[in-house]
Amino acid sequence: MQAKSFVSRLLSRQSEKQSLLCVGLDPDLTRIPRFLSKGQSAESAIVDFNREIIAATAEFACAFKLNLAFYEVHGVAGWKALERTLSFIPAGVLTIADGKRGDIGNTARFYAAAVFDSLGFDSCTVAPYMGYDAVGPFVERPDKCAFVLCRTSNSSADDFQLHGSDAGSHGQDTDPPNERLYQRVARSVSDWNAESHGQLGLVVGATRPDDLAEVRTLAPSLPFLIPGVGAQGGDAAATVGAAMTTRGSVIVNSSRSILYAGAGVDFADRAAVAADSLRKELKAAVSST
Amino acid sequence: MQAKSFVSRLLSRQSEKQSLLCVGLDPDLTRIPRFLSKGQSAESAIVDFNREIIAATAEFACAFKLNLAFYEVHGVAGWKALERTLSFIPAGVLTIADGKRGDIGNTARFYAAAVFDSLGFDSCTVAPYMGYDAVGPFVERPDKCAFVLCRTSNSSADDFQLHGSDAGSHGQDTDPPNERLYQRVARSVSDWNAESHGQLGLVVGATRPDDLAEVRTLAPSLPFLIPGVGAQGGDAAATVGAAMTTRGSVIVNSSRSILYAGAGVDFADRAAVAADSLRKELKAAVSST
Repeated sequence: MQAKSFVSRLLSRQSEKQSLLCVGLDPDLTRIPRFLSKGQSAESAIVDFNREIIAATAEFACAFKLNLAFYEVHGVAGWKALERTLSFIPAGVLTIADGKRGDIGNTARFYAAAVFDSLGFDSCTVAPYMGYDAVGPFVERPDKCAFVLCRTSNSSADDFQLHGSDAGSHGQDTDPPNERLYQRVARSVSDWNAESHGQLGLVVGATRPDDLAEVRTLAPSLPFLIPGVGAQGGDAAATVGAAMTTRGSVIVNSSRSILYAGAGVDFADRAAVAADSLRKELKAAVSST
Repeated sequence: MQAKSFVSRLLSRQSEKQSLLCVGLDPDLTRIPRFLSKGQSAESAIVDFNREIIAATAEFACAFKLNLAFYEVHGVAGWKALERTLSFIPAGVLTIADGKRGDIGNTARFYAAAVFDSLGFDSCTVAPYMGYDAVGPFVERPDKCAFVLCRTSNSSADDFQLHGSDAGSHGQDTDPPNERLYQRVARSVSDWNAESHGQLGLVVGATRPDDLAEVRTLAPSLPFLIPGVGAQGGDAAATVGAAMTTRGSVIVNSSRSILYAGAGVDFADRAAVAADSLRKELKAAVSST
């Protein structure tokens, strides 16, 4: 029997829970409740925090995204916390390894094996700078997905992502075509996806709805992983309106505004309220598109 | 007392050992000698292999580069092997964490803390797609260095690194200037280095000597980390001739052609011979430039 694709599993979960929300599990020891971290090892503090957050928010989420830096910084203890955290995530909720790896040949194959086989993630993020060599090894498993960085939400994203020139009056008739780097990445990943088993997506930030809408026209059928709603300032309704179509699914991530909604003993309840609130906001946006 | 910069420590080591050679510690369990891996855990096999390789080759090397994927693929055991491997590297030899991380804000700070503070590496590689936000957190320690991906040695490097148009007849007078993405990265990193504490370098592959020479003109004083000599086909003499100047230092990495020079009980001796041979080849190339 063919394994179900990432996108089909995603759509099932999103439909069942009426949720586009991804909760980002980025545990920062300086921000998690003091009563959890005090006198505990980093591993225990992270595991206790994540276990409570997962139990409280899973029913409102289509996915959990784990930013690997927040675990790597603690070395072996952090890697143990990462493995233990994954064991708490209920079946049916998709998992995303946000590591933005990007390397070639054997190295890329080992990165893919690390996140998909060793850790068992359903999907991951990948950086495109080295070209297809850095992406190819991530599309060999029919039930997995790799989200390639395209247009990011940070302030210096323009440094290189805008490199090239606007399509402007010359359109796409020139050689090389007049386009920005992120536009070219969107087109390339869309092409690669059509040629491969269809396990690719794009990372497009929520802070620029116009760019989101434009990238959607360049990559009509790719799933988008969209960070930047919440603490980074992206608007939920504008994001859904710009990026979600009948062919193109979206996953909207929020981390800090959920994880740190409360700092007391009721932090998990507060996180649940924040998660459900954003879920509903996204659902309302879907209804009005 | 001010900590010595990475580059000054590098130049000391290179002068003392008459070596531009960096040995890449990329342990692949399918390629290390069977008598080491058979019946052993992944952690023990990697540690035993690396310990022997380091002991045999350190005197011929200015640096060791550890590709993090080869450790991550083994999970907690791999991270333990990484930490133990670092403990075998003698003082004076520089260390490079080749992880090509590239993220923003807190995430980038945690990646920098992971490689520099938690693991204690002297330098690392960084991916530029997200712009300065992804690089800035790596230049805050005066004795460390971050090598930013610029022109890589793999076959699909052209997919995005050539994006833009050639300087051609219009030179740099147009706005935006006619240039390729890798040229823009080289110029930007050179500018950032001048504005910061001077802890940046570039990754430029050995397989394209013309591009190496061109990037050197765009970034005259940045240290270059140059992979691609050996198994990937780059020529040692052409590499040094194109990239090394009195202002611009180079580190030439070789991994497989040294690690797997032999597969028997004498693998470490064979590795030492291969390392010293490449060291001498690079030294001869320096003399003839």
